[in-house]
Amino acid sequence: MQVTEQSIREAAVRIRPLARRTPVMQIDNWYFKCENLQRGGAFKIRGASNLVLSIPEQDIPRGVVAFSSGNHAQATAIAAKHVGAPAVIVMPEDAPKSKMEPTRAQGARIVTYNRFTDDREAIAAVVLAETGGTLVPPYDHPMIISGQGTAALELLEDVPDLETLVVCVGGGGLLAGSATIATAVKPGIRVFGAEPELASDTFQSFAKGEHVTIPPPNTIADGLRSPSPGKLTFPIIQKLVEAIALVTEDEIREAMRYIMDRLKIIVEPSGAVSVAAVLFGKVPLAAGKVGIMISGGNTDLDFLKTL
Amino acid sequence: MQVTEQSIREAAVRIRPLARRTPVMQIDNWYFKCENLQRGGAFKIRGASNLVLSIPEQDIPRGVVAFSSGNHAQATAIAAKHVGAPAVIVMPEDAPKSKMEPTRAQGARIVTYNRFTDDREAIAAVVLAETGGTLVPPYDHPMIISGQGTAALELLEDVPDLETLVVCVGGGGLLAGSATIATAVKPGIRVFGAEPELASDTFQSFAKGEHVTIPPPNTIADGLRSPSPGKLTFPIIQKLVEAIALVTEDEIREAMRYIMDRLKIIVEPSGAVSVAAVLFGKVPLAAGKVGIMISGGNTDLDFLKTL
Repeated sequence: MQVTEQSIREAAVRIRPLARRTPVMQIDNWYFKCENLQRGGAFKIRGASNLVLSIPEQDIPRGVVAFSSGNHAQATAIAAKHVGAPAVIVMPEDAPKSKMEPTRAQGARIVTYNRFTDDREAIAAVVLAETGGTLVPPYDHPMIISGQGTAALELLEDVPDLETLVVCVGGGGLLAGSATIATAVKPGIRVFGAEPELASDTFQSFAKGEHVTIPPPNTIADGLRSPSPGKLTFPIIQKLVEAIALVTEDEIREAMRYIMDRLKIIVEPSGAVSVAAVLFGKVPLAAGKVGIMISGGNTDLDFLKTL
Repeated sequence: MQVTEQSIREAAVRIRPLARRTPVMQIDNWYFKCENLQRGGAFKIRGASNLVLSIPEQDIPRGVVAFSSGNHAQATAIAAKHVGAPAVIVMPEDAPKSKMEPTRAQGARIVTYNRFTDDREAIAAVVLAETGGTLVPPYDHPMIISGQGTAALELLEDVPDLETLVVCVGGGGLLAGSATIATAVKPGIRVFGAEPELASDTFQSFAKGEHVTIPPPNTIADGLRSPSPGKLTFPIIQKLVEAIALVTEDEIREAMRYIMDRLKIIVEPSGAVSVAAVLFGKVPLAAGKVGIMISGGNTDLDFLKTL
């Protein structure tokens, strides 16, 4: 299966029972796609539900397994509950409680691991071997990437004349899906990734022209701590994305304050990375309309107090 | 002029160039009308633009004058700028900077006063005598009340089968307008006001059956610090509202945290008062759908840090 305009349009129809059409907010010529107001508080429900809603009925009782820093965990748990599949989620033990508690509240079983010493994929593999369930990977799967691309599809339906699109990049599912659909429906659109300086695996890979793996990053943008871009996502990003912009931790914090102040919404650090890239001139902007993907809003009040 | 279903429906058409149709968010059977996501960060643009857009063209150059604790100030400044009228706003010197700065940014001239020692209406009268401008009162005017009622009209268009509606009350413009339209389009709907215990002027007036004036209140809900209900708003509230619920300062804070955590949006203390009334069982709730008006979102990050 390839990630195409068609696979993303099919995903948009498939995920309707589970994903909201989120609002687009505007400040001057900046258009913010508010996936922080998405079900589960992040765009992740799009990809997770696209995959989970495609599981053959006879495989549902064996359940699903996901490994995730947080938002994909909750999304998979919501989608699994919807189809009646038991869910096991492998999460880092230091995930924010705003991400762990809602996942448990959806009825998922949570297995924790240490981000610095354990291999989450190996842990997930053990669970899969035991249950015979379906793996719902966080980004590196055509159904996941296609589902995430529906966010940009909606944005371009609402604001068809975007000249630029800025999307944060962790594993790259949202960026790869968004770039695929944006360049298909609006040829000539300039698509940029945005990444924390402290988690610059995609920036480095982009520069080197091959996969670079970095030590476990410790940025406040906990959703973007992937150590390397995906095997499927990276070639798409290489082909369709103009550049990866890097932002500092202080710029992420400032962007969070800016969004709270100006739009009266809460954005998590990862969700503010694209905003920071625009706010601090890290992407070249013409006079035209700029689409900015706000990926999620799951952050603790305790963290907001540190801003 | 009377406040009627007709005057509110006319307002809904008139204010379209200036007021947004805000989203309705849902948790279980609770439906939140998000006026914190309104232009200017609060419902006040509805009433202010309804009045300002009705000013005869020959009166525009003499400008407008408003007195306000904050949100009505910004709303009047936005509406005045839209029609090209100079604006003078009389604001308390201790208004939150999140309310004062955007008002100034709209090009309005700000005159400050001391809430505990000065008479803001007298100050506004002096400015009016000098300029011959039009007064845009914060609540006690049929055009203002009708404009505010459009928020409830939209909510009932989106959720027609509401059984209960809960609206905060300061001067009473939003509650009076909302009660008028709600009982007109949904006969039998139960409408409740919600007020801080520390600013219980409408509660006391409601109980006594006549206007009660209290000393300047010091609740954190800075938008609801009116010392008495309006001459026009109160009779409407007496006739159409079932009861006024009182909430404590701690309940307001808890409701702010709840909204931030569950809806990923920022609500100001005044905007959380209706939420607190529902969350803490201060209004009788049946199993049916409850409409909850979130009046605004203009609060400082510094205040959020105290939650």
